[in-house]
Amino acid sequence: MTTTGTPATSTASTTDAETAEMRNRAPEILGGLRPVVEPAMRAAIDTLDPLMQRIASYQMGWCDAAGEPSDAGGKAIRPALAVLGARAVGARDECAIPGAVAVELVHNFSLLHDDVMDNDIERRHRPTGWVVFGVGQAILAGNAMLTAAVDVVARDGEAGKRSLPLLLDSVQGLITGQSDDLDLEGRDGVTVEDVLKMEAGKTAVLLSCSAAIGALAAGAPDESVRRLASFGHEVGIAFQLVDDVLGVVGDPAKTGKSSSSDVRAGKRSATIVAALTGDSEASERLRAMFADGPPEAEEDVVLATKLISDSGGLDWALGEAERRMRVALEQLDGLPLVDGGDAELAAAAVRDLIEIANYIVDRDR
Amino acid sequence: MTTTGTPATSTASTTDAETAEMRNRAPEILGGLRPVVEPAMRAAIDTLDPLMQRIASYQMGWCDAAGEPSDAGGKAIRPALAVLGARAVGARDECAIPGAVAVELVHNFSLLHDDVMDNDIERRHRPTGWVVFGVGQAILAGNAMLTAAVDVVARDGEAGKRSLPLLLDSVQGLITGQSDDLDLEGRDGVTVEDVLKMEAGKTAVLLSCSAAIGALAAGAPDESVRRLASFGHEVGIAFQLVDDVLGVVGDPAKTGKSSSSDVRAGKRSATIVAALTGDSEASERLRAMFADGPPEAEEDVVLATKLISDSGGLDWALGEAERRMRVALEQLDGLPLVDGGDAELAAAAVRDLIEIANYIVDRDR
Repeated sequence: MTTTGTPATSTASTTDAETAEMRNRAPEILGGLRPVVEPAMRAAIDTLDPLMQRIASYQMGWCDAAGEPSDAGGKAIRPALAVLGARAVGARDECAIPGAVAVELVHNFSLLHDDVMDNDIERRHRPTGWVVFGVGQAILAGNAMLTAAVDVVARDGEAGKRSLPLLLDSVQGLITGQSDDLDLEGRDGVTVEDVLKMEAGKTAVLLSCSAAIGALAAGAPDESVRRLASFGHEVGIAFQLVDDVLGVVGDPAKTGKSSSSDVRAGKRSATIVAALTGDSEASERLRAMFADGPPEAEEDVVLATKLISDSGGLDWALGEAERRMRVALEQLDGLPLVDGGDAELAAAAVRDLIEIANYIVDRDR
Repeated sequence: MTTTGTPATSTASTTDAETAEMRNRAPEILGGLRPVVEPAMRAAIDTLDPLMQRIASYQMGWCDAAGEPSDAGGKAIRPALAVLGARAVGARDECAIPGAVAVELVHNFSLLHDDVMDNDIERRHRPTGWVVFGVGQAILAGNAMLTAAVDVVARDGEAGKRSLPLLLDSVQGLITGQSDDLDLEGRDGVTVEDVLKMEAGKTAVLLSCSAAIGALAAGAPDESVRRLASFGHEVGIAFQLVDDVLGVVGDPAKTGKSSSSDVRAGKRSATIVAALTGDSEASERLRAMFADGPPEAEEDVVLATKLISDSGGLDWALGEAERRMRVALEQLDGLPLVDGGDAELAAAAVRDLIEIANYIVDRDR
């Protein structure tokens, strides 16, 4: 699914060639923004105690387990959103740097901790932090990264004063999302609303913060900050919904997820819960199948996957994702700029934000 | 050991009766300060997500595992230091409340996390947080408490701007202390300096922050903030040294520690490491005994305990603790006040700080 932007920037009838071209720009945009933020990122991590620094650097993909330099980092989408959000209100990149560093540190703090809690042993084709450094040191390094994130923003004068409450609220939202995720596992009577709330906490809260924090630090009008936050939020929900669909129908080439992986794992994704709680005959049959836990035999997995599709769970999720993306992109239309803001810079940044949004949701890498 | 204050406030020849009277005042001081800080503490925790709130309340001792109100809290020494620190420069209690709340939240965040890392199952005669709520939720609740601590200070206007960097630096110091503690376990060649650095991080950093943060928020002269910080730091080190001695000689009535408990556990306390790294014949014999791990047979434990004593490890630690306490109490002499500060209030607060310091180090509860 590629949901394109407002009429001004794209059309609903984008051709495949145009789509391909659009898709191709996101990695370039992210690559171009990396050197804008990375020096400040490294400076923030350099302030940590040596062992915490080493674990944080490993988590960031900057070094391997032995401390040798490596290049295994993530896509750094969140800091890119922060810088583009500032540009989208006509502000200079410098305004966005502390916020950009903070959201990336918070993101990596949460990954490091989540891997401990979820007992995950691999991330980005490498052993997770706790596997390499032990559970205790991994938890501590996460705490150090969270504290460093706050520190970077707190030391940013008036801009920091404006953006720190948003950062702290977002961290609490992220914590609640992971807590809800742990809580939903194996709980009865989970509703689609429960799942969407949890997924909002796990993904949308920090994407929303990322998109808004640079503009907020730059002193953008409230309306712009609110709309950028809403843009990030809706993109986050759309991403989760598509991700949940991919967890059922699979697309190993794009996502590394095999078909029906969430069905096998009995995951309470929005798609699966929508199917399980529906009124159709397919939903009823699905409930009966899941009554004693997720299906195990391959033929049952195939049947359950078909029932999820028949129940309308996939269509619902894709339709909802598309709607969310439309709402997201509408937010970017005619954002009020900062005083004396550069309108040309802003227009280019809005185009880039649309690229990034499509890239996030399509997971086309 | 009761190290008394500067000549102005007490004498080296304090009688037993006087000592007993002094000792008796600390619980009363702490009890009197509790209602000053607790409403703001509860308000801070009330902002959390319901499950995080419940775990935080359990950790604070305000409710039992089922959520029923209880009174199993700690002594709340850190918030008391924050309020007394503000009073000691003649400032009003209100100035110190956000900092007081923050240091207690940070303290409890670290206890909650440390119990996970150290696999401790009991604290204050109750199951630890992770035992009741699971490892994941306990880690998350710790994160939520840390974030709430920062939030309380960040929202405190100009006072918050002054005190936030101290709070954040102290959190990093605390994290490093716990990291060093995990790192020293089973490491070879540990020196007394390594242990003292670790113990400073685990205890002295946050006591130092607690003693200074209220005065800092109140806008006290730099010299006063620095001296209060130094007071808290030295008291923290003195406490650790005495604690390490008690881990060898024991005093179950006062501390719940049985004689030789640290010897049996092979703990790298300052006392034991001082004994192990000494030049005496006792040290040499002790090294031979510990070469293959801590002694197990009761007669070996008794012999090792005697060798630690013979090597001078205990005397060294007690002497060093006494020296640290002297330095600590000297800091409180003639602290410059805030503009228009109340000198009488300040003098009373200094007397209270001395009580609390002796109480911390004597562990006489």
